[in-house]
Amino acid sequence: MARARSPGREVVRGYDPSRVRLAVPASHSALQLLRGARDEGVEAILLAARRYYESIYSRFPWLYSRVVVVDSWGELLSGRVVEELREANAVLVPHASLIEYVGAERLLELELPMLGNRYLLEIEADWERKLGLLEEAGIETPRRFRSLGEAAEAGAPVIVKLPGAKGGRGYRLVSPREARGLEGALPQGAVVQEYVVGVRLYSHFFNSLVHGRVELLGMDLRLESNVDGLQRLPPRLVEELGIEPSYTVVANVPVVARESLLARVLDYGERFARAVERETGYPLVGPYSLEGVVTESLEYKVFEFSGRIVAGTNVYTGLQTPYASLYWSEPMYMGRRVARELREAAARGMLEQVVT
Amino acid sequence: MARARSPGREVVRGYDPSRVRLAVPASHSALQLLRGARDEGVEAILLAARRYYESIYSRFPWLYSRVVVVDSWGELLSGRVVEELREANAVLVPHASLIEYVGAERLLELELPMLGNRYLLEIEADWERKLGLLEEAGIETPRRFRSLGEAAEAGAPVIVKLPGAKGGRGYRLVSPREARGLEGALPQGAVVQEYVVGVRLYSHFFNSLVHGRVELLGMDLRLESNVDGLQRLPPRLVEELGIEPSYTVVANVPVVARESLLARVLDYGERFARAVERETGYPLVGPYSLEGVVTESLEYKVFEFSGRIVAGTNVYTGLQTPYASLYWSEPMYMGRRVARELREAAARGMLEQVVT
Amino acid sequence: MARARSPGREVVRGYDPSRVRLAVPASHSALQLLRGARDEGVEAILLAARRYYESIYSRFPWLYSRVVVVDSWGELLSGRVVEELREANAVLVPHASLIEYVGAERLLELELPMLGNRYLLEIEADWERKLGLLEEAGIETPRRFRSLGEAAEAGAPVIVKLPGAKGGRGYRLVSPREARGLEGALPQGAVVQEYVVGVRLYSHFFNSLVHGRVELLGMDLRLESNVDGLQRLPPRLVEELGIEPSYTVVANVPVVARESLLARVLDYGERFARAVERETGYPLVGPYSLEGVVTESLEYKVFEFSGRIVAGTNVYTGLQTPYASLYWSEPMYMGRRVARELREAAARGMLEQVVT
Repeated sequence: MARARSPGREVVRGYDPSRVRLAVPASHSALQLLRGARDEGVEAILLAARRYYESIYSRFPWLYSRVVVVDSWGELLSGRVVEELREANAVLVPHASLIEYVGAERLLELELPMLGNRYLLEIEADWERKLGLLEEAGIETPRRFRSLGEAAEAGAPVIVKLPGAKGGRGYRLVSPREARGLEGALPQGAVVQEYVVGVRLYSHFFNSLVHGRVELLGMDLRLESNVDGLQRLPPRLVEELGIEPSYTVVANVPVVARESLLARVLDYGERFARAVERETGYPLVGPYSLEGVVTESLEYKVFEFSGRIVAGTNVYTGLQTPYASLYWSEPMYMGRRVARELREAAARGMLEQVVT
Repeated sequence: MARARSPGREVVRGYDPSRVRLAVPASHSALQLLRGARDEGVEAILLAARRYYESIYSRFPWLYSRVVVVDSWGELLSGRVVEELREANAVLVPHASLIEYVGAERLLELELPMLGNRYLLEIEADWERKLGLLEEAGIETPRRFRSLGEAAEAGAPVIVKLPGAKGGRGYRLVSPREARGLEGALPQGAVVQEYVVGVRLYSHFFNSLVHGRVELLGMDLRLESNVDGLQRLPPRLVEELGIEPSYTVVANVPVVARESLLARVLDYGERFARAVERETGYPLVGPYSLEGVVTESLEYKVFEFSGRIVAGTNVYTGLQTPYASLYWSEPMYMGRRVARELREAAARGMLEQVVT
Repeated sequence: MARARSPGREVVRGYDPSRVRLAVPASHSALQLLRGARDEGVEAILLAARRYYESIYSRFPWLYSRVVVVDSWGELLSGRVVEELREANAVLVPHASLIEYVGAERLLELELPMLGNRYLLEIEADWERKLGLLEEAGIETPRRFRSLGEAAEAGAPVIVKLPGAKGGRGYRLVSPREARGLEGALPQGAVVQEYVVGVRLYSHFFNSLVHGRVELLGMDLRLESNVDGLQRLPPRLVEELGIEPSYTVVANVPVVARESLLARVLDYGERFARAVERETGYPLVGPYSLEGVVTESLEYKVFEFSGRIVAGTNVYTGLQTPYASLYWSEPMYMGRRVARELREAAARGMLEQVVT
């Protein structure tokens, strides 16, 4: 797909590669990004709303060389801030909180280089395009239904994902029996996805343009409230209380898959990178994640992706990871990997290629 | 709250700071404390009952420079042993097993410096004072009921915690329906706490008087028997077998929370330290933990605390932890952090401040 | 038990100890074995079927110095390959995938030294002998029943393990009620084991002949599909869908046990090593694992073992582990531990002792 030149690439041409900095928006995975920049000797600029700055980041001053504190998230990328970041030769790392604060549309136009593919963020914000991209990549996904009635007929439990649902909020599990009573009730932009039973696996990838490879750097499992607490109640009590499962992401646990699964995981990681480039006209740069469930017959059904750093990588902040140790002899985790790519790209005159 | 001078502070004034040692009681978290002392070049003295010494600690002789083996836990802090420890300039690290062996009351009078707040151990041993301290600190806690009848009326499932319950034993889950049949059956000193459904989070803190800050060093999740096994049975089988959940702590898993939760977690950690100092007249020194559950609306309901090192920190024995990496560039885990504080306090003439 | 001289020991006598190499069959735990060999400066030869080589191992060329690619698993240890390995002074590391590819019987006769006890692999392949060995070692195991009828009478839920079941496939949970309807339906070679409710604990051991000790190097928890997904469904939905639990191993999570359990875990690890030597006439060399469940009264009921490296050790690939840190100051994980033993045995003229 042909594309106009990205605004980030235009801007980065004016940068001094020997003085490039990393701009890290607060929350989500900011702490590991800051720690990673420090490990690589890349100066980091923290962007934070006052409330978060004071309650979290002010405690870790050695992790950044400069901080931009704003009064509200909306100002995070105001004209003044963008100007300051450009003067500092700063490359922005996008993550889910940033998208939530300023919106995927605004990031699209932002006149600041971004380590990542900004056009993918736009796709990620739309369920239909998001799941379509996975399918287009040739990755196995759970069945999709056009309606709850169709799901009821198939006898499959489904997850209904509402438009704008994020961090697991706005998801609802519907049984075939319930689906029959709910026909026609779907809001515009919602998707109905088969609920596949199995072990969930969130795979963390990094597409390195400097090294010309997709690296698998880790895996995690999300703990969600209330569903991961409900399991600890006796069945009769769940019934007595009538609590429905919900899926707010609270925490993450490190996990490692059986080795033979890597054939599929690595293949999917690479397929996804190729599909993104085909679809957006720009390479998939840096961190992303495929999020799925492994069935008893060892299929990996990918139900979502994150087109940027995923918070599950936080389980490895400051550490070597089991998978990173297959590529790197020194401790390597996603936050550090981002800074490494930026540092190496700057040193090799490849800055324009690793940003959009 | 005014306090007489603590016995530990009196004793430590007679110590030679250049030859201070760490006394580590066997079991609980002894292995990481020993490993940590070794990492910091602090000599460790292991105190162990013969049975545990022979079955566990005799296998790791490089982890301590001296061992005191006694025939029964009761002798662990006999006059002879205390004398020997004082001559060795030893500072004792209290943990839950030590409290179980010798009792919180006896620790209160012990003429030996303790890295930790001994007056907090006394509070921890009494449910009413324990939960009261959390509330006093301004930390969100689950609702408490004065009786099972009150809980039944509120329609809330509850955990009944019997006096002396520890390691999860002596806990019982009661549904609203059951509560109606059990009114008036509560023994003296038991508490009735709402059972909050969500993801459990055990946060590990270290209050450093040397560095003047509360550090968040890790998080874990407890695995409890039988409740974490029951979940793997089909609902109908749980009903058929009629098994009730129980909560004996068996193991721990490392976990990392979503970053925005840290605002609350760090705040609670600091609030707790301040409340302990207000309540006991002595600072909260060294390791402690807040133990709670995160709801689907991301509240952190703290249902208990540990006023000393918590065994869940064992998941990081000998390793860097994701959170410690935000404060420390070298690998840092709770056992090492304890030895570091002792070493630094000794070097800076602050020994008296870090003990009670 | 008297034994003829093992074929591996015969062959290794002709090796040049200063040029010994490690032969690592693809899949299972190959990546950590390769990484470990690299850490220890031991050259590794990877043996892989083409499909796996291309989809996984070709991406990590720095992890091995030579690769033998075959067209099918059956050729993995063909005469030609064995010849090449012998010329390269290669010692083979067996694992579950290798056993699956070429069969335990063929490994018994293989004229190649193996780091491990090949006679134990034979025992492991037979449920009756496998569980008998645990019992003979004096390790607590779940009750065994001769028939489903006996289990029904005892009122105990059971797991039926079919002959050849592996990786958790071919296991079936049967409730007392169901057992009554299934009497007499057991195939030859199946076992009926009480299903013990509690927290599962997979303990990773290494028996070092060079250091004369059994080391506990880690623990993990298996995630199995579909059973670990089923728990996240509301009870009524499990009933509505009528899904039965299944046990295909998908992934592993690192875990640490409460310290007092180590008395039992370490004792069992050593008992098992002694029993294997009594039973096979050869020492238990290198990695193995005990797999069990801890009850609410803290018994450790071991339901299976792995007489070679277990895939759960992959959670620590390239890392220090909490337990390894009690024996080793440098990062040590199972893959590296294997290479370390080989390197040290070669240097001390002990090669013959560490192979069969």
